[in-house]
Amino acid sequence: MDIGFIGLGAMGQAIARRLLAAGYRLTVWNRSPLPAQALAGEGASIAATPTEAAARPVVFSMLADDAAVDAVFVLQGALQALPAGGVHVNMATIAVALAERLAEMHAARGVGYVAAPVFGRPDAAAAGRLQVLAAGDPAQVARVQPLLEAVGQRVWPFGSAPARANAVKLAGNFMLAAAIETMAEAATLAQAHGVAPADFLGLMTQTLFASPAYQNYGTLIAQQHYEPAGFRLRLGLKDVRLALQAADAGAVPMPVAGVLRDNFLDAIAHGDAELDWAALAKVAARRAGQDRR
Amino acid sequence: MDIGFIGLGAMGQAIARRLLAAGYRLTVWNRSPLPAQALAGEGASIAATPTEAAARPVVFSMLADDAAVDAVFVLQGALQALPAGGVHVNMATIAVALAERLAEMHAARGVGYVAAPVFGRPDAAAAGRLQVLAAGDPAQVARVQPLLEAVGQRVWPFGSAPARANAVKLAGNFMLAAAIETMAEAATLAQAHGVAPADFLGLMTQTLFASPAYQNYGTLIAQQHYEPAGFRLRLGLKDVRLALQAADAGAVPMPVAGVLRDNFLDAIAHGDAELDWAALAKVAARRAGQDRR
Amino acid sequence: MDIGFIGLGAMGQAIARRLLAAGYRLTVWNRSPLPAQALAGEGASIAATPTEAAARPVVFSMLADDAAVDAVFVLQGALQALPAGGVHVNMATIAVALAERLAEMHAARGVGYVAAPVFGRPDAAAAGRLQVLAAGDPAQVARVQPLLEAVGQRVWPFGSAPARANAVKLAGNFMLAAAIETMAEAATLAQAHGVAPADFLGLMTQTLFASPAYQNYGTLIAQQHYEPAGFRLRLGLKDVRLALQAADAGAVPMPVAGVLRDNFLDAIAHGDAELDWAALAKVAARRAGQDRR
Amino acid sequence: MDIGFIGLGAMGQAIARRLLAAGYRLTVWNRSPLPAQALAGEGASIAATPTEAAARPVVFSMLADDAAVDAVFVLQGALQALPAGGVHVNMATIAVALAERLAEMHAARGVGYVAAPVFGRPDAAAAGRLQVLAAGDPAQVARVQPLLEAVGQRVWPFGSAPARANAVKLAGNFMLAAAIETMAEAATLAQAHGVAPADFLGLMTQTLFASPAYQNYGTLIAQQHYEPAGFRLRLGLKDVRLALQAADAGAVPMPVAGVLRDNFLDAIAHGDAELDWAALAKVAARRAGQDRR
Repeated sequence: MDIGFIGLGAMGQAIARRLLAAGYRLTVWNRSPLPAQALAGEGASIAATPTEAAARPVVFSMLADDAAVDAVFVLQGALQALPAGGVHVNMATIAVALAERLAEMHAARGVGYVAAPVFGRPDAAAAGRLQVLAAGDPAQVARVQPLLEAVGQRVWPFGSAPARANAVKLAGNFMLAAAIETMAEAATLAQAHGVAPADFLGLMTQTLFASPAYQNYGTLIAQQHYEPAGFRLRLGLKDVRLALQAADAGAVPMPVAGVLRDNFLDAIAHGDAELDWAALAKVAARRAGQDRR
Repeated sequence: MDIGFIGLGAMGQAIARRLLAAGYRLTVWNRSPLPAQALAGEGASIAATPTEAAARPVVFSMLADDAAVDAVFVLQGALQALPAGGVHVNMATIAVALAERLAEMHAARGVGYVAAPVFGRPDAAAAGRLQVLAAGDPAQVARVQPLLEAVGQRVWPFGSAPARANAVKLAGNFMLAAAIETMAEAATLAQAHGVAPADFLGLMTQTLFASPAYQNYGTLIAQQHYEPAGFRLRLGLKDVRLALQAADAGAVPMPVAGVLRDNFLDAIAHGDAELDWAALAKVAARRAGQDRR
Repeated sequence: MDIGFIGLGAMGQAIARRLLAAGYRLTVWNRSPLPAQALAGEGASIAATPTEAAARPVVFSMLADDAAVDAVFVLQGALQALPAGGVHVNMATIAVALAERLAEMHAARGVGYVAAPVFGRPDAAAAGRLQVLAAGDPAQVARVQPLLEAVGQRVWPFGSAPARANAVKLAGNFMLAAAIETMAEAATLAQAHGVAPADFLGLMTQTLFASPAYQNYGTLIAQQHYEPAGFRLRLGLKDVRLALQAADAGAVPMPVAGVLRDNFLDAIAHGDAELDWAALAKVAARRAGQDRR
Repeated sequence: MDIGFIGLGAMGQAIARRLLAAGYRLTVWNRSPLPAQALAGEGASIAATPTEAAARPVVFSMLADDAAVDAVFVLQGALQALPAGGVHVNMATIAVALAERLAEMHAARGVGYVAAPVFGRPDAAAAGRLQVLAAGDPAQVARVQPLLEAVGQRVWPFGSAPARANAVKLAGNFMLAAAIETMAEAATLAQAHGVAPADFLGLMTQTLFASPAYQNYGTLIAQQHYEPAGFRLRLGLKDVRLALQAADAGAVPMPVAGVLRDNFLDAIAHGDAELDWAALAKVAARRAGQDRR
């Protein structure tokens, strides 16, 4: 099967490699050429433009944000280049509203559109351990199912409206940010009464909260280990913003998301935009004066 | 060893049974007589008054709240009845400020005081699977360590100031309530975009949030299964209140705890005080108008 | 002086009438023709298109929102129609980011751009009692100063960057919404303890808070008088959204604005989008169960 | 008429002086003797103990907080010293729950109890410009009405349950704190877009918010003039705490009050407890990084 792959950031590269390793033929494009050259050494063809990469029966894209998706698929014409009867698998974390607009635009052109955002970081992607959400026309989802299974540990179907998978992804990222904030507030409370955050979080994340998310971020917070960033704080704010926009469209009050927004802004105003988003925990400590002890 | 045990609610009974089963001699007291009679059938002696039960070298208590602890130990004199050289193991979830006051009062009488609040529900207590926090004079903690191990799956030490264990317990209960609220907001967002809460929460609690707390409450929320209450919503508010008081004493802003407080009050204003505290999730859905669909 | 005037909603009409009454020659355009015809009866000329109205040395516009400004000035070409050396006075409440973009676009065409949003409702506009904010190149502001004085009770200068006047307008509308929310919470607290909101708000708005904003909205809340709408609740949410966007751009946490956002959404989820935005007060009462007494 | 007066802080002194000036005979007591001696020079008699001052047909008290009221009237016995048929006018800002308890205790002793908290600072008290709230048995309120009129500019009746006047006072103080927070957030937003807080607040407090509260605190915020304190920030937190307790008792969510609580704690954690409570505005600026420019 001839697959186009657009967007070779850390996640995109790892996913493209999984497809190559599974024996698929890939034509890749990336804004900066280096990642494409690396994949060429592993068997991929390099497209000179996004439209060239998009002229395939199946096209994957993993772009950074709404602006990049809009730039490549709308302004630079990749959408127009998709062949009739083809299918576009969009793995980016984008706005629900943009997903709805893209679904309409693909339908208008007679091209399938599957939203397939993922949970997991680049190392999980490389190991094929991503959780893949999938939503779109059932026939189209079925068509790309083997590809998604090559990429992820499990594929979670969310029905025929692509935007639903994006809503799920944003709701999930909100939950991650809320877990960071919750641990930060709780650890600051414990610290104020003489209990070291590492002791407190050690207990909680080995018992009631013994899950990957809590253990990962609990360790980062306890160790104040915010560099290098696994996921940058300013991107965390971006996703909370998208969750709040989706909530606004659905008339859903989300007071915890409001708290997250304010605390991300506080972090950015204090110069922490490029740290790992677990550095959100610095805000709770600073507000309680614990950074000055 | 001769042990007094005061307070035989669902948790107290289960813990007392663990001690009996481990071969300890128990003299029990409870405000209402039935639970004591049940334990008498399993070998416990019944004390006619709290002071009689408290006249032992080791006294456990598991009372409902600050008011009950104050009533039994201060007003009814159980504290005065503790023999010099004895030790009192207080397992209740109480205010940090009360714990500090009790520590002083016990010290003034030459009696040991160990705070040993627990995580876990009655079924976990019956199975010896509680997580037991322990703080107090190290010699006193060491003295009761075998008893605590008979009661719980693991004993987590938090130093020599008893109130620290209470701060940890309150911070932990805050984390549980925050997890409920977070799932509620996220599931309401997903629902507004056409995704069933059960589908969304199923994904999250089997992957990133695969922990006992999230799986337990995620299931209750997805199924809207709020009766019978494992832990009543009004008691959840009580613990959030205690966490906020401890935060106030330590000058710790806790915006998520403030959100919890408001939403618990909203739930109580709508008649849900006696439901399981997972019913906090009804608030997010109601505010988004999803109860009317 | 020959003035174009674009946008004849309730505010636009009242302002245009002030200019006519002051003796200026007006060429007006509105999307729907009726308001223009009414003004024609008072001496205005009617333009067939926005570009025709915009082809004047001085052009005022009072459009509903960002989308309308973008549609008329960018998509329909009114901006291109502004004559070199002319000046555009934009009185709409728009986003700070849009104001910055418009300032650049006008500068690129050699046309002056003055942001002149106002405080006041249509009756105040009709009576010349608006508060007019003005920001832009000082020479351009000076040029239109007599016109702004004909329109308002006082002109408040905010420097040479037009977007500053928009930031001030949004911050001011945030203050109005916060005053409504504050009175709602306080009155709900008073009511819960047996004090009628009218009694409580009567005291406060005749003493410490004896100002137009508090007296106006205090009366509406006390009387639960939310129709007809002086300013619709969904437009109130729009302005809070714009304030939050401007706060985001400036890394400013605004927790009270976050509360407002959630409560506006709650109101909209309960069907109150078209009521006066003082109906925000219904949310606080409903959450406390006071709507069911 | 023979009046006892207990509590001669800045407010108590000014009020007592008004009563002396109106020709009433006063027997005063204060914990520290100096203020009483000052009043003795103006005609007051000095009581050696609170019980001596309380043995009068009419007793006013103006004590600092719940603890002081409890100490003087319950622990030191002033309540027992009130003669049968007498009346106690309690002007302190106290908890609704304490007011309810005091009402019961006075009734049990056959003594009248009028809650009469006030709005206004010592200079307003000296000038007889206080706003006096009054609640209690109508006959008792009528009996002390001339005294209250001697003290204040206007007496606002709130019915027969004394605690209602305290609920009103707390709701009012919440409104003042919310106004400070609102101005702080709005001015920080304006500042982030290049508008000086003084310019922004000048506009708002001369127009829509032209009221004593906004003009007073708006000026303090614009000038960053937080010393000497007219009302200390830690006392502001105390009153917000009491408002939240009253809200809790009535199942009233108050999200803005929750924001206030967190920000007061933030201020206290940064060493500002003894500044004027307008210094709450420093929190919004600091969180946005504006303290570092």
